[in-house]
Amino acid sequence: MQGVVPLRKRGVGGIVRGRGIYRIVNLRQMKKPIYLDNAATTALDPRVAEVMSNLMKEEFGNPSSIHSFGRKMKVQVEGVRNLVAEKLNVQPSEIFFTSGATEAINTIFNGAVKSLGVKRVITTQIEHPAVISSAEYHAKANNIQLDYVKIDQQGQVDLEHLKSLLEDETKKTLVSLMHANNELGNLLSIKKVSEICRAHNALFFSDTVQSMGKFANDLSGQLLDFAVSSAHKYHGPKGVGFMFVNGDLKIDPYIIGGGQERNMRAGTENVYGIVGLGKAFKLAYDELDQNRETILELKHYLMDKLQSEMPIIRFNGNTDGLHTVLNIGIPKNEHNDMILMNMDIAGIAVSGGSACSSGSLHVSHVITAMGLADEVSAIRVSLSKHTTKEELDYFVEVLKGKSYFGTIC
Amino acid sequence: MQGVVPLRKRGVGGIVRGRGIYRIVNLRQMKKPIYLDNAATTALDPRVAEVMSNLMKEEFGNPSSIHSFGRKMKVQVEGVRNLVAEKLNVQPSEIFFTSGATEAINTIFNGAVKSLGVKRVITTQIEHPAVISSAEYHAKANNIQLDYVKIDQQGQVDLEHLKSLLEDETKKTLVSLMHANNELGNLLSIKKVSEICRAHNALFFSDTVQSMGKFANDLSGQLLDFAVSSAHKYHGPKGVGFMFVNGDLKIDPYIIGGGQERNMRAGTENVYGIVGLGKAFKLAYDELDQNRETILELKHYLMDKLQSEMPIIRFNGNTDGLHTVLNIGIPKNEHNDMILMNMDIAGIAVSGGSACSSGSLHVSHVITAMGLADEVSAIRVSLSKHTTKEELDYFVEVLKGKSYFGTIC
Repeated sequence: MQGVVPLRKRGVGGIVRGRGIYRIVNLRQMKKPIYLDNAATTALDPRVAEVMSNLMKEEFGNPSSIHSFGRKMKVQVEGVRNLVAEKLNVQPSEIFFTSGATEAINTIFNGAVKSLGVKRVITTQIEHPAVISSAEYHAKANNIQLDYVKIDQQGQVDLEHLKSLLEDETKKTLVSLMHANNELGNLLSIKKVSEICRAHNALFFSDTVQSMGKFANDLSGQLLDFAVSSAHKYHGPKGVGFMFVNGDLKIDPYIIGGGQERNMRAGTENVYGIVGLGKAFKLAYDELDQNRETILELKHYLMDKLQSEMPIIRFNGNTDGLHTVLNIGIPKNEHNDMILMNMDIAGIAVSGGSACSSGSLHVSHVITAMGLADEVSAIRVSLSKHTTKEELDYFVEVLKGKSYFGTIC
Repeated sequence: MQGVVPLRKRGVGGIVRGRGIYRIVNLRQMKKPIYLDNAATTALDPRVAEVMSNLMKEEFGNPSSIHSFGRKMKVQVEGVRNLVAEKLNVQPSEIFFTSGATEAINTIFNGAVKSLGVKRVITTQIEHPAVISSAEYHAKANNIQLDYVKIDQQGQVDLEHLKSLLEDETKKTLVSLMHANNELGNLLSIKKVSEICRAHNALFFSDTVQSMGKFANDLSGQLLDFAVSSAHKYHGPKGVGFMFVNGDLKIDPYIIGGGQERNMRAGTENVYGIVGLGKAFKLAYDELDQNRETILELKHYLMDKLQSEMPIIRFNGNTDGLHTVLNIGIPKNEHNDMILMNMDIAGIAVSGGSACSSGSLHVSHVITAMGLADEVSAIRVSLSKHTTKEELDYFVEVLKGKSYFGTIC
């Protein structure tokens, strides 16, 4: 690192508001931008793109049509359903394709309340916004009691508190706890939570968006009532996902109007997307161990490097969790609230949380819920099978630049 | 036509139930199956497939991410929004991408009831199931008054009856009338209905799924409050569409959980689908007149041929409507309830209505509402720019086969 020079002292387009924005000089530039935001979305696997592109040239039928064009496409869709069900060790009739996990989560909450008589939801304040919004919506619109399980400063769910909340069984309850936290990487023991829920007659939904395709999730044995997936989290296309609904339960569709997905989700199926999901899901499971090993090594490499070169930083959450996510906490000071933008200028894509919507460092609801919002600025680095050590070296090099971060290292 | 011989007199797999199923012999076979079901879905235009395939190789960012990967994809999505808005002569802020028209229709009905205080819906019994289901759902779940406008035996909407229904303005009303009927091809005068709705302070939603990309729909001038589109109806991909919401109205999102689509539709965007929609929409508008001329000539060719060679048949609905749709009525008899399956065996894809779900001739809710269910069996032939006269000749040849249809010709 030879230093940086001011690009435009007055800032760019009013965004920077006088703090200055810097252009990197003499810094070993990477040839192409570096993507370390794989929890937000992943690069489409070229093998997935190929399968989709080929199908787009060959078939176009509507799977609901009874003629040969429709049947051919129906075979494709059902093939993916069978594949997903087989990998998850559930029945094909328990898998329903959706436009993604958010729609699936809306469907599950709506179904739990409207079809299954749920009167109470127990969740945490570190869930994905789709879960929190759905819980809050039904609390308000349908007078559902909403309780939050305590979490500690590591973002770990307090299972004893969950037990105590569930002791009151007067209201039919849905417990909604995510498997892998998208910001921290913390993992929940689905088995333990399942046992607690089953002991107290509560329904159990786990938001499995971040763990699908990364762990050999076995959903058999009445472990869960609901689970969800978005293909773009495991190198599949965006705009397609699925939900698992325990076959013992019958919920109403959320999107109504046609008999698709066995009357569980109306609307002509996103057939190219579903086939892309199938290929991505298969690849993720076929290469699960190999990807996990590669990515875990990268994660440890990054952790070691950060700890030795930047002892002032801390890691938020439990670093033994999801191999793809590392949440880095930098002690708060006036110089580090533009980290994300400066990283972007340096060609590095990272994020502060799940719902960044401005150039300034997003104050994550997860970090806030952990009680750390006043102490640290958080950077979520999320890795994939495409990440390299050179990219992580460059990330650390940029992060270390004093001109960006003042006194932090 | 030299004749047909029984394939298996006992039927196939129990579906045929003893009536026999026939194999065509010595009939001039088409080299490949013939697709005449373009109202159900259309073939993906190779130029659309190419644009999507190229983007799948090049970009994968999440449009909600603030970094360069996200911004690049955001530019793609907003480019399509601007294109659609420009063609429809509305503001980009009035266009919202969805997983298709069915989701859009669910959003519109939910928003009209929950956000705009609608207490009454006026529609017809010949709307698409997505509209009828939504209207019936809100009638039951939210105590909305539901009235149906009369239609005649041609399926034409009785606008005088609509006026008389709207004279009672005590309840905030949503009028939901489709622009082009998907089974009959009948066209509604959006201008006339708009004037009636405006004169009676009613909101006006027109299901424009079948007309988008086929007419130069100009939605400016407060003509409509809501309109919808699915890309796969105009040679785009399945699983993506949009809704137009009049900028003077603010409705709540139906799928909640994130700030996407300016807080109007949560969930990571189907970016490849949206870009495919954009290309398909552009092509449809650029080639609108040419396609219309080609398809109208084909429709008239088919009508003339049928009228001269099969005088016993009739046309259901108004044949001056949508150029892509022709609904053929065959007087009912015991031999013609397997028409669709026999057509399929002959390699021809046609349909009986919008929601066929079995091998037998579907009794369409539209034909039923027109009072024709006991008189005719209906075959919807729907054309596209890819249809040829030779395909139509073959269709008529098969339709004429006495062995299929007994005494009809």
